[in-house]
Amino acid sequence: MTELIELGKKAKAAEKELRRCGVKKETALLAAGKALLLEQKKILSQNEEDLKAAEETGMGKAMLDRLRLTPQRLEEMAKAVEEVAKAQDPVGRVLSGETRPNGLQIRKITVPLGVIGIIFEARPNVTSDAAALCLKAGNAVILRGGKEAIRSNRAIVSVMREAVEKAGLPADCIQLVEDTSRESARALMELTGYLDVLIPRGGAGLIRTVMENAKVPVIETGVGNCHIYVDRDADLPMAAQIVFNAKTSRPSVCNAAETLLVHQDIAKEALPLIASRLSEKQVEIRADARALPLIPGSIPAGEEDWETEFLDYILAVKVVDSLEEAVSHIARYSTGHSECIVTKSLESAETFTASVDSAAVYVNASTRFTDGGQFGLGAEIGISTQKLHARGPMGLNELVSYQYVIIGNGQVR
Amino acid sequence: MTELIELGKKAKAAEKELRRCGVKKETALLAAGKALLLEQKKILSQNEEDLKAAEETGMGKAMLDRLRLTPQRLEEMAKAVEEVAKAQDPVGRVLSGETRPNGLQIRKITVPLGVIGIIFEARPNVTSDAAALCLKAGNAVILRGGKEAIRSNRAIVSVMREAVEKAGLPADCIQLVEDTSRESARALMELTGYLDVLIPRGGAGLIRTVMENAKVPVIETGVGNCHIYVDRDADLPMAAQIVFNAKTSRPSVCNAAETLLVHQDIAKEALPLIASRLSEKQVEIRADARALPLIPGSIPAGEEDWETEFLDYILAVKVVDSLEEAVSHIARYSTGHSECIVTKSLESAETFTASVDSAAVYVNASTRFTDGGQFGLGAEIGISTQKLHARGPMGLNELVSYQYVIIGNGQVR
Repeated sequence: MTELIELGKKAKAAEKELRRCGVKKETALLAAGKALLLEQKKILSQNEEDLKAAEETGMGKAMLDRLRLTPQRLEEMAKAVEEVAKAQDPVGRVLSGETRPNGLQIRKITVPLGVIGIIFEARPNVTSDAAALCLKAGNAVILRGGKEAIRSNRAIVSVMREAVEKAGLPADCIQLVEDTSRESARALMELTGYLDVLIPRGGAGLIRTVMENAKVPVIETGVGNCHIYVDRDADLPMAAQIVFNAKTSRPSVCNAAETLLVHQDIAKEALPLIASRLSEKQVEIRADARALPLIPGSIPAGEEDWETEFLDYILAVKVVDSLEEAVSHIARYSTGHSECIVTKSLESAETFTASVDSAAVYVNASTRFTDGGQFGLGAEIGISTQKLHARGPMGLNELVSYQYVIIGNGQVR
Repeated sequence: MTELIELGKKAKAAEKELRRCGVKKETALLAAGKALLLEQKKILSQNEEDLKAAEETGMGKAMLDRLRLTPQRLEEMAKAVEEVAKAQDPVGRVLSGETRPNGLQIRKITVPLGVIGIIFEARPNVTSDAAALCLKAGNAVILRGGKEAIRSNRAIVSVMREAVEKAGLPADCIQLVEDTSRESARALMELTGYLDVLIPRGGAGLIRTVMENAKVPVIETGVGNCHIYVDRDADLPMAAQIVFNAKTSRPSVCNAAETLLVHQDIAKEALPLIASRLSEKQVEIRADARALPLIPGSIPAGEEDWETEFLDYILAVKVVDSLEEAVSHIARYSTGHSECIVTKSLESAETFTASVDSAAVYVNASTRFTDGGQFGLGAEIGISTQKLHARGPMGLNELVSYQYVIIGNGQVR
């Protein structure tokens, strides 16, 4: 697709220039953050148009809310951009270095990844977040948002481009794909030679499509079928508190819990206690045969419930014979995002953390903490659920690569 | 393809077991190294069969040599396995860690990647090298070698499997794809859900095929169209020495130089000097219009020469107007492996290293040093020319991922 190849070429050129911009990245992003506020009329009016069009096509209330920008939300977006601006530059860090016996001085130094593609859905705040993170790490970014938000995204991108260009950066380090057809998404997935990595941000369907079709390197993000296992030796009030928080504090996000596994020896006592907490928020409980009689009002779980990221006030519950059965269940159904054991036993904690192969493994804490900010990593571009390159929250330090620089004085081999 | 799915399932199971084997990995690999020597009769006789079959199909001399095993080569293979066995375990290292203000203790810990697929060509020593590296890093490996080496590979794998199993490891942590058809290679590239990463080791054709067709994450390796740029301020005898070494010390490997770029101001003096060194090894020189009259016996270069990894006693030579032109030429034609500047100018050195986006960038040293052993990283599984996950020589520390382990005492968000 020629549009995409054009964007790719411009991004490559911008990325090369960006390598030499160093500290200008900070001033440019501070300016871009300010511009989002200064130009808020333009952005909000374009967002209004998006909302009108979306209402006409019958978009649901929750989706409309995700799409909506307000002065307050714009302020949050601007603040996020400014925070990224002020963060430590992830480029140029010496990761390691040594002088070899032959006198070669070898340094391993962080460098930008290059050109990053982001495919995302209805939320316009992703536009400014992703652009700021990519740019701070020295990367050019090609953004491909959803059709519903095209006017908002166009306004945000044009405001940011203008601001960074005034600050001396190439405008093309932030580009938006104007064409929001399926074909443009597909073309982005196949933009070999221009994209160094493609990051999908959105629901399970989008991520699956990208994983299956991309020919460029991809980082899989975000789908979280997260589990909490309540061990035989658990502190039960703590278990109830953690399950309640992980399920209900924000059910629509990827680090919310979706399945509860409870050891058979304490199921009789634990399940009514946990269920009673969950009933405060009218959580629907889908229980296996052993859990069903212990939870008033629960309904039988089907096989698909173990696989589902509900993103809603729904929890699948299963009684297991042992920690090993819990680990096996998790190995089979988890998406590798976040899992938790509630236990007082050191041995159980050690076995669980050593056996569960997910990005974040918790002992006695809510899965809701899997987040760049909560981990102290700063703003994140997504949560990686794959094992190559980056795992878990991806912040600025995950948006770089490295290269070896070797200084010699004539060494040959 | 059912064979591959079976291997995938067994690898997944083996990998889970391997996670708990810790120090047993070392004893198992030491045993596997010894077994290669103890069972050398079996391996050499199978290799003899491979050689016979290959000769019958008219395989060339160089390829036959790559395929051939000798007692000495087996000894080198065994020694390599033992060295990997004794290396520091790359799994379980704490990369970073902190206690958050809310009391959560967060540690970022290295863990195995999981299941690694390796597609390679005729060299049977890759079998033992790759198996040892993957296993030491806690990974199960699925090896898919070339048809020509199938009997040798089968013998090597069966000897190693037996040895590691006796030492208490699951035999299925090392598996060989018996089917060497194109279909089996394709099936391996599409083994989503079983392979955590696929690493091709071989020529440019193999690597291109894998990059274009793989649906699993891939690490691109090895193609090296490496450049040497001789700056205006170069020490010319040093330049001649470095070019001679980088081109002729082992032309068939990926870190050998393929193109020489020379600044116009010193071309008249430098090119005859360099060409005279290269003539010692009868290097064929393909020169651009400005270089041609300066190098006796050179022939005109065509566009395709700038793109070609000759892997032979052939060098493309071009005179450039400036360092900037050298950098642009490299950006256009390089495969991102290794490039070198020869210069006495600090400014030129800084500009070159800051502008050239390759895995290894040299100042005044031969590109031939891009190698795990030479960099002090130990044995390598390949040289990554992509920017995700690992770049440059990939040793044990590049064959792991990491996970976050978070210890709390009831924290909720």
